[in-house]
Amino acid sequence: MPEQYVPTVVIVGAGFGGLAAARALRNSPTRNIVIDRENHHLFQPLLYQVATSVLAPGQIAAPIREILGAQENTTVVVGEVVGIDKQECCVIVDAPHRKGVAVHYDYLIIATGATHSYFGHDEFAKFAPGLKSLADAVAIRNKILQALEQAETEESPADCQDLLTFVLVGGGPTGVEMAAALAVFLRSVRKEYRRIDLTSARIILVDAGPRVLGPFADRVSAQAQKRLEQLGVEVRLGHAVDVIDEGGVVVNGQRISSKTILWTAGVLPSPAGKWLAASTDRGGRVKVGQDLTVEGHPEIFVIGDTSFLEQNGRPLPGVAQVAMQQGAYTGDVIFSRISGKPAPPPFHYFDKGNMAVVGKGYAVLQSGSVQLCGFQAWLIWAFIHLRYLAQPSLRISVLTQWLWTYFTGQRGSRLLIRHHGMQEAHVGEAESASAGTR
Amino acid sequence: MPEQYVPTVVIVGAGFGGLAAARALRNSPTRNIVIDRENHHLFQPLLYQVATSVLAPGQIAAPIREILGAQENTTVVVGEVVGIDKQECCVIVDAPHRKGVAVHYDYLIIATGATHSYFGHDEFAKFAPGLKSLADAVAIRNKILQALEQAETEESPADCQDLLTFVLVGGGPTGVEMAAALAVFLRSVRKEYRRIDLTSARIILVDAGPRVLGPFADRVSAQAQKRLEQLGVEVRLGHAVDVIDEGGVVVNGQRISSKTILWTAGVLPSPAGKWLAASTDRGGRVKVGQDLTVEGHPEIFVIGDTSFLEQNGRPLPGVAQVAMQQGAYTGDVIFSRISGKPAPPPFHYFDKGNMAVVGKGYAVLQSGSVQLCGFQAWLIWAFIHLRYLAQPSLRISVLTQWLWTYFTGQRGSRLLIRHHGMQEAHVGEAESASAGTR
Repeated sequence: MPEQYVPTVVIVGAGFGGLAAARALRNSPTRNIVIDRENHHLFQPLLYQVATSVLAPGQIAAPIREILGAQENTTVVVGEVVGIDKQECCVIVDAPHRKGVAVHYDYLIIATGATHSYFGHDEFAKFAPGLKSLADAVAIRNKILQALEQAETEESPADCQDLLTFVLVGGGPTGVEMAAALAVFLRSVRKEYRRIDLTSARIILVDAGPRVLGPFADRVSAQAQKRLEQLGVEVRLGHAVDVIDEGGVVVNGQRISSKTILWTAGVLPSPAGKWLAASTDRGGRVKVGQDLTVEGHPEIFVIGDTSFLEQNGRPLPGVAQVAMQQGAYTGDVIFSRISGKPAPPPFHYFDKGNMAVVGKGYAVLQSGSVQLCGFQAWLIWAFIHLRYLAQPSLRISVLTQWLWTYFTGQRGSRLLIRHHGMQEAHVGEAESASAGTR
Repeated sequence: MPEQYVPTVVIVGAGFGGLAAARALRNSPTRNIVIDRENHHLFQPLLYQVATSVLAPGQIAAPIREILGAQENTTVVVGEVVGIDKQECCVIVDAPHRKGVAVHYDYLIIATGATHSYFGHDEFAKFAPGLKSLADAVAIRNKILQALEQAETEESPADCQDLLTFVLVGGGPTGVEMAAALAVFLRSVRKEYRRIDLTSARIILVDAGPRVLGPFADRVSAQAQKRLEQLGVEVRLGHAVDVIDEGGVVVNGQRISSKTILWTAGVLPSPAGKWLAASTDRGGRVKVGQDLTVEGHPEIFVIGDTSFLEQNGRPLPGVAQVAMQQGAYTGDVIFSRISGKPAPPPFHYFDKGNMAVVGKGYAVLQSGSVQLCGFQAWLIWAFIHLRYLAQPSLRISVLTQWLWTYFTGQRGSRLLIRHHGMQEAHVGEAESASAGTR
């Protein structure tokens, strides 16, 4: 009896899309290979809570191997995809120790997401880090904590004010959530600094558009902005940032001096379009058909933030929900093709709604015709975010931390972690010290 | 009415000793300044659990400002002490933005601890990192996780075996705890790797002495070694490591190929002896009198790992208990001097005993004539360690994590966190991709 051929499904990226696809192929007669350059799945919507010291990195990320450990038809590879050979049906993977390993696929799912875009101003990156990975979040946390420590020992009042001025560029959900969380954070640690007065700290949120939370309804945006202003955040709309440098930003011809600038504006898809030499939209997203495959390649699927598909004449937004639904759909398509079942109907995105947290116990929510602002929306937000965390252990740990922080104001992970390179200095100094007393 | 002079107590280092001193001065009529180069107090005895992915950095560290936040006579400065001017009664502090700030003291408590010593082989540092700070623990965690990922994609069986060979240099408590924890870790993730067989992994613990856990009784050492061997750890005693390089170590003329070498051997005191130009022991510890002050300077106290004091003809060990008792004692001395009370009796160390964990639910313990090995000792260990964690929130969070890991085997923080420097590459690639489709 001839052995039956087991097709290989390669899934590139273990974000919301890739993980949903892998899970949908849990029981399929395939060999699945999940490739990611990180060893963990990251719950990006809570990244701003790591950046503001509430949660630890380990509370919003779980090892991909652990998540998929019980799924025996699935292998995990930690490595970075650098290219795709469509003719030979291979993805090219660089691991730290070995470059250019070719991994064969019968079906390929590309779910490589997006990073932040500086709209052609790459020189901004140095002064205004973005928030997409755990490393970013820890770097931003360090930057904020360091600014407060410097301010506490700074003699010049002007320099002190610059250190206590935080500029956030981009008024989307990340910018709004981050600005509000930062305001709450500064309030909660106010008493622990003896020299500086944190009530004089400024948080400035800049956006080129006419309102914050662009994708939300006018009324919801207005509520969010009102709440931000109640928290002491200065909202500046209608002008893009012209300059970002060491000393601050320039907006509408006016310079704002600041030592801490964060970037939450543009989104840039992964280079999947280049790997595939495929047709993309202006932003670089790969155009896919109604079954999420690339034209001429029914075996290649592109999903999530790195793909482009219109529904009712409008492009699908780059949000977790779209990626998850597309991942599950893709798994179904492959499963049905292999088992000879009829193909599922074309992909249709079901928009469950949008939410954003604006400070402690307050969120805005919009779902269909429902609009909700306040504590009730925050409860729903909290419930849904806990629900979608990858592992039960994370749900328990994040819930416990939220309750603790809510009632005590104490943060879970307010750490400046730095290498000091002291080893060598100490060795030398101690040796001379002991030599001196011999 | 003339204002009363408020003396300034400067405490350098917020480890166990410095924190105990600061707390002892909680109600004293002094102005206390705690200086540390980190913003957090670190619970070093649990560092090995961060290195083996059980706990997150934030679970064993708490911001110094938070710990001392309610203590209104105490200020925290994050900066690095680089020298002491005994004549002018100043410590010289470097902060990242300002060098050489002089901080005046009336009383000075130096509690700057120790780092690891490579016994004059500083070239080992590059290949065999030590475990003293959170940054160290995260680096070692990364190294271990990276080795497993590389092994999983490695083609050559010999290279794979090198990646699965872990050498720990130093059979003291840290080395023993780390070796056992690593064995338990490798067992718990065995099923998640599809290609490599983690039962073939080797953990080798090397020590120059005749037995592990030198400071413990013979019988306890023997029990610990037996337990290590049951966990699969190879214990090699009686020979120091001669060479450490990229390819592995050489012990007793024999080369052991390994890609992951960890250093838990020597201890090197901070350069306090040099700052003070004071008399030190051969290792560089500052010799102090029975009241923990430096000869000729009754206003300068040196405590913990960086001080040298004999009791019953033997030097006090460099352990947390000594530092804590000395910190509290120093606070009392200063308090009584200021308030004109009689000086406390000479410092006397009360040794409550030693403990070391050897894998899951097993510890060895020695206290006076009591020797205990097994689960009961582990319960005592767990209770005491939770008791001494700095903050209630950490106790809850560590206990929860331990219970979770004990019953599920899942770790709290198995994360490889890396910066990818992808931003620039993506920008360039995406731009050319979108240009190509215009």
